[in-house]
Amino acid sequence: MPLVVQKYGGSSLADADSIKRVARRIVDTRKAGNRVCVVVSAMGDTTDELLDLADAVSPDPPERELDMLLTAGERMSMALVSMAIANLGDSARSFTGSQAGVITDDVHGRARIIDVTPGRITEALDAGHIVIVAGFQGVSQNTKEITTLGRGGSDTTAVALAAALKADVCEIYTDVDGIFTADPRIVPTARKIDRITNEEMQEMAASGAKVLMLRCVEYARRFGMPIHVRSSFSHREGTWVYETQGEDDVEAPIIAGVAHDRSEAKITVVGVSDSPGQAASIFKAIAEQQINIDMIVQNVSAIATGRTDVSFTLPKTDGQRAVRVLQSVKAELGFEQLQYDDQIGKLSLVGSGMRSHPGVSATLFQALADSGINIEMISTSEIRVSVVTRDDQLDNAVRAVHTAFGLDAADGEAVVYGGSGR
Amino acid sequence: MPLVVQKYGGSSLADADSIKRVARRIVDTRKAGNRVCVVVSAMGDTTDELLDLADAVSPDPPERELDMLLTAGERMSMALVSMAIANLGDSARSFTGSQAGVITDDVHGRARIIDVTPGRITEALDAGHIVIVAGFQGVSQNTKEITTLGRGGSDTTAVALAAALKADVCEIYTDVDGIFTADPRIVPTARKIDRITNEEMQEMAASGAKVLMLRCVEYARRFGMPIHVRSSFSHREGTWVYETQGEDDVEAPIIAGVAHDRSEAKITVVGVSDSPGQAASIFKAIAEQQINIDMIVQNVSAIATGRTDVSFTLPKTDGQRAVRVLQSVKAELGFEQLQYDDQIGKLSLVGSGMRSHPGVSATLFQALADSGINIEMISTSEIRVSVVTRDDQLDNAVRAVHTAFGLDAADGEAVVYGGSGR
Repeated sequence: MPLVVQKYGGSSLADADSIKRVARRIVDTRKAGNRVCVVVSAMGDTTDELLDLADAVSPDPPERELDMLLTAGERMSMALVSMAIANLGDSARSFTGSQAGVITDDVHGRARIIDVTPGRITEALDAGHIVIVAGFQGVSQNTKEITTLGRGGSDTTAVALAAALKADVCEIYTDVDGIFTADPRIVPTARKIDRITNEEMQEMAASGAKVLMLRCVEYARRFGMPIHVRSSFSHREGTWVYETQGEDDVEAPIIAGVAHDRSEAKITVVGVSDSPGQAASIFKAIAEQQINIDMIVQNVSAIATGRTDVSFTLPKTDGQRAVRVLQSVKAELGFEQLQYDDQIGKLSLVGSGMRSHPGVSATLFQALADSGINIEMISTSEIRVSVVTRDDQLDNAVRAVHTAFGLDAADGEAVVYGGSGR
Repeated sequence: MPLVVQKYGGSSLADADSIKRVARRIVDTRKAGNRVCVVVSAMGDTTDELLDLADAVSPDPPERELDMLLTAGERMSMALVSMAIANLGDSARSFTGSQAGVITDDVHGRARIIDVTPGRITEALDAGHIVIVAGFQGVSQNTKEITTLGRGGSDTTAVALAAALKADVCEIYTDVDGIFTADPRIVPTARKIDRITNEEMQEMAASGAKVLMLRCVEYARRFGMPIHVRSSFSHREGTWVYETQGEDDVEAPIIAGVAHDRSEAKITVVGVSDSPGQAASIFKAIAEQQINIDMIVQNVSAIATGRTDVSFTLPKTDGQRAVRVLQSVKAELGFEQLQYDDQIGKLSLVGSGMRSHPGVSATLFQALADSGINIEMISTSEIRVSVVTRDDQLDNAVRAVHTAFGLDAADGEAVVYGGSGR
């Protein structure tokens, strides 16, 4: 009998009625002849309410205790979903992350799954039960402490369990119809993507696409687990995130979509001595603070001064900390000044067709130029081109690029990028 | 270093401010030179809110899932108390019932503790942490399922942990000052009891006194663990529930207090054939339904008919079920009719001095007679006399008896029962 792993997010479990609706969908999946293992998030606003409570007793709660508190959220929703299923006459058993064998490292608040030993889940499935598992949580391998996985943790739980159980598919239910060619709030003509490769999805997620978190996609890619992202509010097919078997799918569109990201800031280190090791020293100081940087640009140095400017982007949330670090080593590094800019936006064009179709970058730059949008930084991967613009020009940029690559045509999937020689 | 186990109930943990107040008290206990292990209930109305949620998704939720849901309540409060302690600069570690080694039988909703293996607790205490444990919950020995202990479960957790840890005292914090000679809502002159024996407390709890649940007292008595019942809203001494070392304390008052109970109903089986085995058949039918009965009275049979009436009391919640059972075996048992009466009240006078002071019953009956209160049933133990009255006369009865035994005198403890010859 096929095994389906489903994951329902908090917006699909907002209240008792939503829970009953989700229970009905789970029972239907079971009745269609599947074994079903379901991963649930906390109900609607529960996590925020728990965080408010924590904040009310302590401005800086210990992470171990915060994990203990937050894991109560999924515990409630998993029990309620099980009850709602029982009320429909089917039989369900709920399990915490720890009971489900979700083994993590020891890092509270953002633990990584290092193993899944789903013995109790398999047993319950074999006994004919529907299984409900608390997402977002696990138990640490060494200290046996309760951990949480951080943002997107429930999706990761679902994919990890699906892989461990050798499920046929992992269905991620959310409140939108799937992955879109761009954020529909910015591009009203954005289309739902029917199929996207794991590799493309990984670049989209890393570039700011919000529906699937990067780590979940990475996990699915590592284990070759197909994901079906779909709405819990309809029965339409959503987006299939699939594993390419070596060769690219020749039928696939060249461009998968346009992602955008407003979460980064830019720091420019002005007047760095253009001698070997200077850039390394800058980034070593940053790395020592566990701050990840994204794009880096180094200007050609001025011959007269022998000095240059280095710019890089990083999460806004780490911005002030990075500035403080660099100020503290200013004398040592010998630069002239620091500029901090959090009014930037990043646009990323993603598509595995870029490998075989030259000219994508040229079309991208021309589309931005035609819209009067200045490009401040550029970075590329094999299947992605990213540019930094002014924050207030980002929405226009996304729309212009979406149109330039034929993504908002009525039958967009059929539009083949022509390589016009630009 | 002395080890103190404290238990805080939901009314002491109603909101963030209450939690901070409790944390302060815990830290003070630690600073006074104790190791501290704290058992917490769910915050204020949390359990009721969770039950409402369960009810909204299923009228008859599976007990396993209900336990999974309800145990989220203590999980939240224990994490929040730990955070509040950390915020005061001390270090706390919270543990679920399962993590704390509270091993129970397999009965969901009203599991019994069968063992406590507090390895992780001892380790955390030895490492210098304050330990916070979720009350009311455990893990079943055979099935490794999460269980709850039912009413008064957190008190029982505290006493069981105190016994397993060989604590010096188990402090039960509540919203009243201790155990009273009668319910102060009925007897405004009721006094706080300073010291009461375990045996007396057990009779008080079994007779309807609400502050400590019977099973918790039984557990404390079995392990000889002294309990200090006190208010979390003051620093006054509360009531010590202590273990007598064989001999009765000669300084102790003869009468400990007056308990009352409105939770029972009376069933009278009319016209039972007064032949051997008839009463046994009645109570066998009841017992087969797992219904506990309390008092039993059999009238002297009428010589003319050779028939008699048998009356017994039982929890109101089981009343209708017991009536149905008896109706179903009416032909077999050959009685004439059933009378069901849920307008009764029970008054119990408890005191280990009864053993050595005759005349207590006589004084009790006279006090009731003087107040015009009719006695419908009587039962006694070595240190208790209980009578059944009309429900609407019960409050008057409690006040009359409380006065008759000098319990509401200003210096009541010094009043010695005189045995006036009545």
